[in-house]
Amino acid sequence: MTESRVSGSVRIIGAGLLGASIGLVLRRNGVDVSLVDSSPTAVKLATEYGAGRPSRADDAPTLVIVATPPDVVADVVAGALDEFPDAIICDVASVKGSILHDLEARGVDLARYVGSHPMAGRERGGAVSARADIFTGRSWVVCSRDGLAPGAIRAVVDLATDCGANVVEMSTSDHDAAVALVSHVPQIVASAVASSLVGAPAKSVELAGGGLRDVTRIAASDANLWIQILGANSHDITSVLEGIRDRLDAVVAALKDGTATTATLAELLASGNAGVARIPGKHGASAHFATILVVIDDRPGQLAKLLTDIGELDVNMEDLRLEHSPGSAIGFAEVSVLPAAEAGLVRALEERGWRIAGDGA
Amino acid sequence: MTESRVSGSVRIIGAGLLGASIGLVLRRNGVDVSLVDSSPTAVKLATEYGAGRPSRADDAPTLVIVATPPDVVADVVAGALDEFPDAIICDVASVKGSILHDLEARGVDLARYVGSHPMAGRERGGAVSARADIFTGRSWVVCSRDGLAPGAIRAVVDLATDCGANVVEMSTSDHDAAVALVSHVPQIVASAVASSLVGAPAKSVELAGGGLRDVTRIAASDANLWIQILGANSHDITSVLEGIRDRLDAVVAALKDGTATTATLAELLASGNAGVARIPGKHGASAHFATILVVIDDRPGQLAKLLTDIGELDVNMEDLRLEHSPGSAIGFAEVSVLPAAEAGLVRALEERGWRIAGDGA
Repeated sequence: MTESRVSGSVRIIGAGLLGASIGLVLRRNGVDVSLVDSSPTAVKLATEYGAGRPSRADDAPTLVIVATPPDVVADVVAGALDEFPDAIICDVASVKGSILHDLEARGVDLARYVGSHPMAGRERGGAVSARADIFTGRSWVVCSRDGLAPGAIRAVVDLATDCGANVVEMSTSDHDAAVALVSHVPQIVASAVASSLVGAPAKSVELAGGGLRDVTRIAASDANLWIQILGANSHDITSVLEGIRDRLDAVVAALKDGTATTATLAELLASGNAGVARIPGKHGASAHFATILVVIDDRPGQLAKLLTDIGELDVNMEDLRLEHSPGSAIGFAEVSVLPAAEAGLVRALEERGWRIAGDGA
Repeated sequence: MTESRVSGSVRIIGAGLLGASIGLVLRRNGVDVSLVDSSPTAVKLATEYGAGRPSRADDAPTLVIVATPPDVVADVVAGALDEFPDAIICDVASVKGSILHDLEARGVDLARYVGSHPMAGRERGGAVSARADIFTGRSWVVCSRDGLAPGAIRAVVDLATDCGANVVEMSTSDHDAAVALVSHVPQIVASAVASSLVGAPAKSVELAGGGLRDVTRIAASDANLWIQILGANSHDITSVLEGIRDRLDAVVAALKDGTATTATLAELLASGNAGVARIPGKHGASAHFATILVVIDDRPGQLAKLLTDIGELDVNMEDLRLEHSPGSAIGFAEVSVLPAAEAGLVRALEERGWRIAGDGA
């Protein structure tokens, strides 16, 4: 049992993956947790997993956590504000502005409502997938606003901290603009690129390399959940997506009529270089690492041996990716290290018999 | 020395990464290789690395490999056809149609010219980055055409096979359509998404997760090289890119006016699901694996220990990815396995003290 910041009694509404995972953390810390869900089976399952207990009529929670699907959060928050007039009410949905606006339109006092967004796991899977660890080391955005009740923000920051998350305080509108940029628009674009594969000849798709795999990876996400998320953040998504659509439009136009093709492409590629350099890598540093490709036989234990060797060479590996060639028994491990460590590592690995297949193109 | 399919004398024009790497393979097999480059220093360097020898006036190669930058390949091929009237001439540039059309426009006999494209390494770096291994297990497209001289395709297939590549024969137009789809358009779209980060607040970009990193990863590619590649395949790129631009346009329109938003998003996401499922994964299978996230301390040796444990459990790991949370000492290893192996692996790893942080969202 670790020291708990959250005290008193907590009500969790929505006993899915997020709700049940929070329940597991709080129960592990000895906090009283009552569970409510539109599905009695979900409550039963989460209770059996140790995420809390069924609710009672005389429950008097000091903190209510709304962890329902995004499209019913505003309704549920409004109900909780009414039912528990002394409690702080928070939610964990991944879009915040539309919920706040919906609540404001009802004319109820929102001083006790705090929106938050743990950027962890996925929002489906149910209690069966719940784990106390899913928030560890993840960002958990807590949306500050004017006019909040004393202690309201504190209560949610304490919850996120108890869950092991890194608390990020930002305004509702800043949050929604940020997730549009770093999550929602990339999802839409990845889906659009993956869509272009649907009617393509198999022989074309078989030439796919790591680049296409990377770009389209999140296109495999749960469509039903994303419809709700994307639909609830249309304003912020639109402004980012229009910019990207316009850039693609400019490229199409330049390629079609052949004028200023080189300049248009050069501008896009340079701007892409600059943008990707802004994404924080490990330890918050920018992602400027040297990568080397090591050939590994596709046998169990080979990769563990490589990593053991790298560890013995006392080189700090910044990142690792695996790549397989379709139809081949050969794999590649792409090892990222600080540029200063590259030459020495290549030499040392070759001395140990590893084959280096160039850099990670 | 392995058995060589290529025999006789080979001329390599362009002693950069690809040219010098091919030279290393051929020399290792005992083939005579003469090197030519517009830079005498490049020839000297590649010679010292063992990729061949400087050319002589009486060289009579039976195979000429043009490995220059894409924008001068047609000129160099035409020159080689003229200079060596009995040799097969091939090139290794990543776009094929524009080179062939350029050559056809010159009215020369092209029966001895075969276009090819090893999908390996990157096309810069020079002889200093050359390695005999860069083609191992990679696809090498050889473009078949009507009217080729007897043995012309065979000569290039032999070369690719000697280099350890998987030979894929396809027409010039099929090749260009395929690389537009799986390589060129993803590059443009990744650059466009990364561009949108340029002016964004740092606090927004800091919320970036694995999704954005994946989508924008190849936006860090060499801009100068990609200008040449993209400019040379404008027709095929345009048709794929227009489709994606139109899809994004439909989403923007739906989000803006609020009509049919749900249906438009649902269609895009479902189509994205279907498209990504077509990409071959390891061993040519579709990429439908279960993923589990294992929490790893950011200490040397932890990952090697995890992989050793997985190896001892006799579970075949299909893929592995690392993820780091900015500002956190915690990392995550995303392990992909066949769905049937997931539950057992989770249990066994937990028994060995590993913390499982849910699935890979």
